Amino acid sequence: MQRALIRLRHSKHKMVKKALLFLADKAEDTEVVITVDVLRRAGIELIVAGVDGSDAVTCIQKTRILPDVEIERCQNEVFDALILPGGPGFENLINNSIVGSIVEKHLDQNKIIAGICAGTKVMCHYKVGLGSKITTYPKYKQDLEKSYKLLDDRVVVDGNLITSQGPGTAFDFALTIVRELCGQEKSKEVAEKLRVNF
Amino acid sequence: MQRALIRLRHSKHKMVKKALLFLADKAEDTEVVITVDVLRRAGIELIVAGVDGSDAVTCIQKTRILPDVEIERCQNEVFDALILPGGPGFENLINNSIVGSIVEKHLDQNKIIAGICAGTKVMCHYKVGLGSKITTYPKYKQDLEKSYKLLDDRVVVDGNLITSQGPGTAFDFALTIVRELCGQEKSKEVAEKLRVNF
Repeated sequence: MQRALIRLRHSKHKMVKKALLFLADKAEDTEVVITVDVLRRAGIELIVAGVDGSDAVTCIQKTRILPDVEIERCQNEVFDALILPGGPGFENLINNSIVGSIVEKHLDQNKIIAGICAGTKVMCHYKVGLGSKITTYPKYKQDLEKSYKLLDDRVVVDGNLITSQGPGTAFDFALTIVRELCGQEKSKEVAEKLRVNF
Repeated sequence: MQRALIRLRHSKHKMVKKALLFLADKAEDTEVVITVDVLRRAGIELIVAGVDGSDAVTCIQKTRILPDVEIERCQNEVFDALILPGGPGFENLINNSIVGSIVEKHLDQNKIIAGICAGTKVMCHYKVGLGSKITTYPKYKQDLEKSYKLLDDRVVVDGNLITSQGPGTAFDFALTIVRELCGQEKSKEVAEKLRVNF
């Protein structure tokens, strides 16, 4: 029985996982790119969706990134995880009805929703896991303390919610998503190659 | 005398510093973007130069980044620091005569040359600071041990050379460049905002 369970868990982790990252102007450069890099190294099929089309997006520190697709092309798909990066661009994720409908669909289907830095404010706007334990960038604590139980950890996992603080915690954030989707062994293997202690 | 020295050092740190990062296809996504982000947060004027023109570059984990300018437009300028990122794209930096001439000019003028991961192999190719203490990604140690004194530290500073290991050490690498160009206080301030222990 134990062996059968191990096999089942192993085969679950063997399936290719899919994730979607929402990219908007003024996103936090490092939070976007670290998450994309780490998830793809783990073999996760990650799509970077431009919330304002497929033109290059200018992140807050002026790195210009081309999305893989425009968000419209993702609205009929289901992903294992949605990723909400931070930066002042979080407001572009709040003011976008397609982002809203994708988040709501994934919430209904109990998929992982992961937010870092101001991405946690997007979660709050769409009422994702209200009352759950989360962490966020220090200056957003006050805005979120009525809706969530705020912890000071670098990353918090509570049910299907994964949250983190900012650029400097983005490797831990991304490796936690890998661990939840692909297992502890894969997250350790990726961390080792990156020279990250995880 | 002491006061005059402090004022001098302070004013040196007040001047806007300029840095150049060489961007080639198959560069290591996170090493590029973390360095750009951290240096710009510190107020350093950082230019991302496309070594094969101004079209979007596809990094090794498929993040597509637009350079600020093509490298030809940088060849007559002098920067306070040159940055050589890693990833398999390092070969594109070795096979580029303009990169070579820019590196040699900055070497002659005792400017900072900073290499991370396979960027250290580019340094070696252009004979930058041969015999100095450096660190690198573990798998490149063997190639470099005849030319440098290899250490296992996450970041090594030796004279005008700054070296580091890989994606997971990129925040430390970039913050060390900030410390060398703008002073300890600025590097601490940027680290704090990023939520990085430095």
